[in-house]
Amino acid sequence: MTNKLYDTSLSLLTDLYQVTMAYGYWKSKTAEKEAVFNLYFRKNPFGGGFTIACGLANVIGYINNFGISKKDLRYLRTLTGHDDAPMFEEEFMDYLANLKLTCSIDAIPEGTVVFPNEPLVRVRGPILQCQLLETPLLNLINFESLIATKAARLRLVAEKDSLLEFGLRRAQGFDGGMTASRAAYIGGCDATSNVLAGKLYDIPVRGTHAHSWVMSFDTEQQAFDTYAEMMPNNVTLLVDTYDTLQGVRHAIETGKKLVARGHKLSGIRLDSGDLAYLSIEARKLLDEAGFQDTSIVASNDLDETIINSLKQQGAKIDIWGVGTKLVTAFDQPALGGVYKLAAFRNEVSDRWDYKMKLSEQAIKISTPGIQQVRRYLDDRGFLADMIFDSETNELDQPTTGKGTVMIDPMDFTKRRRFNAGQPYENLLVPIFQNGKQVYVLPDIHSVRDRVQTQLASLHPGVKRFVNPHIYPVGLEKHLHELKTNLILALRGESA
Amino acid sequence: MTNKLYDTSLSLLTDLYQVTMAYGYWKSKTAEKEAVFNLYFRKNPFGGGFTIACGLANVIGYINNFGISKKDLRYLRTLTGHDDAPMFEEEFMDYLANLKLTCSIDAIPEGTVVFPNEPLVRVRGPILQCQLLETPLLNLINFESLIATKAARLRLVAEKDSLLEFGLRRAQGFDGGMTASRAAYIGGCDATSNVLAGKLYDIPVRGTHAHSWVMSFDTEQQAFDTYAEMMPNNVTLLVDTYDTLQGVRHAIETGKKLVARGHKLSGIRLDSGDLAYLSIEARKLLDEAGFQDTSIVASNDLDETIINSLKQQGAKIDIWGVGTKLVTAFDQPALGGVYKLAAFRNEVSDRWDYKMKLSEQAIKISTPGIQQVRRYLDDRGFLADMIFDSETNELDQPTTGKGTVMIDPMDFTKRRRFNAGQPYENLLVPIFQNGKQVYVLPDIHSVRDRVQTQLASLHPGVKRFVNPHIYPVGLEKHLHELKTNLILALRGESA
Repeated sequence: MTNKLYDTSLSLLTDLYQVTMAYGYWKSKTAEKEAVFNLYFRKNPFGGGFTIACGLANVIGYINNFGISKKDLRYLRTLTGHDDAPMFEEEFMDYLANLKLTCSIDAIPEGTVVFPNEPLVRVRGPILQCQLLETPLLNLINFESLIATKAARLRLVAEKDSLLEFGLRRAQGFDGGMTASRAAYIGGCDATSNVLAGKLYDIPVRGTHAHSWVMSFDTEQQAFDTYAEMMPNNVTLLVDTYDTLQGVRHAIETGKKLVARGHKLSGIRLDSGDLAYLSIEARKLLDEAGFQDTSIVASNDLDETIINSLKQQGAKIDIWGVGTKLVTAFDQPALGGVYKLAAFRNEVSDRWDYKMKLSEQAIKISTPGIQQVRRYLDDRGFLADMIFDSETNELDQPTTGKGTVMIDPMDFTKRRRFNAGQPYENLLVPIFQNGKQVYVLPDIHSVRDRVQTQLASLHPGVKRFVNPHIYPVGLEKHLHELKTNLILALRGESA
Repeated sequence: MTNKLYDTSLSLLTDLYQVTMAYGYWKSKTAEKEAVFNLYFRKNPFGGGFTIACGLANVIGYINNFGISKKDLRYLRTLTGHDDAPMFEEEFMDYLANLKLTCSIDAIPEGTVVFPNEPLVRVRGPILQCQLLETPLLNLINFESLIATKAARLRLVAEKDSLLEFGLRRAQGFDGGMTASRAAYIGGCDATSNVLAGKLYDIPVRGTHAHSWVMSFDTEQQAFDTYAEMMPNNVTLLVDTYDTLQGVRHAIETGKKLVARGHKLSGIRLDSGDLAYLSIEARKLLDEAGFQDTSIVASNDLDETIINSLKQQGAKIDIWGVGTKLVTAFDQPALGGVYKLAAFRNEVSDRWDYKMKLSEQAIKISTPGIQQVRRYLDDRGFLADMIFDSETNELDQPTTGKGTVMIDPMDFTKRRRFNAGQPYENLLVPIFQNGKQVYVLPDIHSVRDRVQTQLASLHPGVKRFVNPHIYPVGLEKHLHELKTNLILALRGESA
């Protein structure tokens, strides 16, 4: 182990079955057959009405650095089947050693509001390559989208208040913390406590002191005074080590000395107890002493529900420090994103064979097609999203004047017509073409701004937490028919 | 971004307040004062009766590679206070550049059964250094202990069945997946799907194919036959792409061809639907066709509750594939471990000043002392754990013949006496002495074995999932008195 997290190629950061399938494709000489996979999720997290797409930047980094190393191959050679014979032929090792990714990838940019069943990433290329990418792509997009969504929900309740992410110590591993800090900032946090995330991702960092600082002095007053003397331009005092309101009085004493020396008391922090009561009492004490500009920071297992409740109780909190519940997405720690084969090039006809997975659970049936998402909008915001197959109809061409019909996949009788002149944007944009990056990554601050612009275009009903309005997402009529016919064919029935 | 997760020193993977406190200690010339911190958690996760300690190997790796780089310093120099002046003086940058860790660290070895309030790690050394280690230590121990505990619970219900970890795609970031694979193996899984974890941690890997393999062929039969031809020594066929029992019949056809060529059908996998019903029906079909040795693998959002229920329903499942619910510890995705200052060297008297944090919530009051845990046992197993201060009494010396008294911290009237001859072991062992590693890390397989040996020494009541028996953990009488007196003193009352 070196000081890097893993001093190794990450190209084997995938499930073994991707490698055994790759071997199967290679050995049956179908490795280069062109396939299309769509990455999507089936349900918005946290019982909410929307999701924020995130994780693409790390996907791009992963793909640009893909390459199976000699050490990787040495390891793969050690794998055996139940007869103790090697799992893979030596020639396959040569193939992997020389493998360069040549896929074309389209994706919805980070910071976009997205909904169930929409392809966040579409991978098109040799099936062997598409398959090897499944696990890392799911890992990155699933987790970052989950955390960005959680942060966006926190931002909605925090309104104009500051929102700080403090979660590193409770995150799921080092990278669980790093990735969460990035996604939390994108989703709407103002800063993080994670110094390395600040350094690597250009996120503002915040923090002053812990209980241990106070405990290391004989008295709380001495601890506060020393802190303020040492770092007069960054003084937020944690007041609950022994007795919270007594702590506020000590902070005020320190604040007076700061002011006398031309500085200010930036804030006090509450980390336990009844935050509504204590913040109201602390505000009174601060105001009476002339510290109207001193902020009150609160932390202690906060999430959007607790913040909402504290605000309703009139808590006088200006800055919310959110940790565990944000970085682990505590109430739903995984977004169930999936990656499904949707089309496969027929070598005889050279046309696409459309593909789907059946299931007795309707929600688990995948949709075929080389999918694109069209978002219709007007000057008040987003109207509806329509998933269509970008190869079998002319929707991707300049509008033909005919308009389109969108069908609700859960209720085929619900249809919606859009005229040809209806403004729209297509959500997926080209990221890689034949393995070459064609997308210029926006900086993290623009991505963060995009989240807020996108949310502003969403109807308030979709953003509410309890029984949110379901934003309409449907299938374009031709794609709906294609899917229906394919289901019937797979079930051995005719249309 | 390179192919490594982070091509950077990880020494700034900490909360900013650790750095600002470090600055405060340095500037007030107390950075080198000797302190003791204990890392512990307050509640067993998942409503269970025990926890498995895990994460120490990564802690050791982190500490051995600690060192603040020039790039780190460049970043720290950019940080400013509210007046836009630099947060830190240049001389402090020099101090950090030359900082070498000299702490002494004791810890409970990985794979040990542990309980609330027991110090899993005890760090003793210059307070500035202890503080910088808080966040990374909490991150690593919290997460790995959580996942190892989850895996141990799964092992308890799976009994002698195979248990595979399949979670990478839903894990919290790349390292959330890597770390989870390691801890899941230690906790009791037999193998992982994560190839990189297999390579780096020497964990067995498993996997064959996904739905997409089946979908890429014209028929399921053709897909199964091709797979079996290409990789005859590793054939577990996923049968639910279209119609599960029809899929089993197709797998049997493929199996017959395998047998005719001198191979075998290792298994079939069910990934959706009613796993109890389908596994029973699949078992019948396989047995009737002479495939009594073919295993049935099940996956699909499994956890210990579902596996338990499936077993009670008589499901014929031999191998359990567990993903999301294991690697994210879905029902409780964070262990609330904390790291508290417990003693501080008094520079005048050169004796320890004992330290604790008060709180109105009794569970949040920390325990002072240079803590060690003594586990009393007899030939039937573990009896009780006693936390004691290893510096203020003679317990750590050869037994004096007096015996000891342990007091329940939640009910002071509950006491337990242990005679001097009662067998015991002290759980914390030296890991670092003055910054130098003195502990030889056991290999991962011995750690995994240790978990099972430890669990075998635990009363069945402590291991049950519903209302588990509470394993007795108490404070040694002198430590109890020391703590009580300190609370009273801090609250301004006399004993």
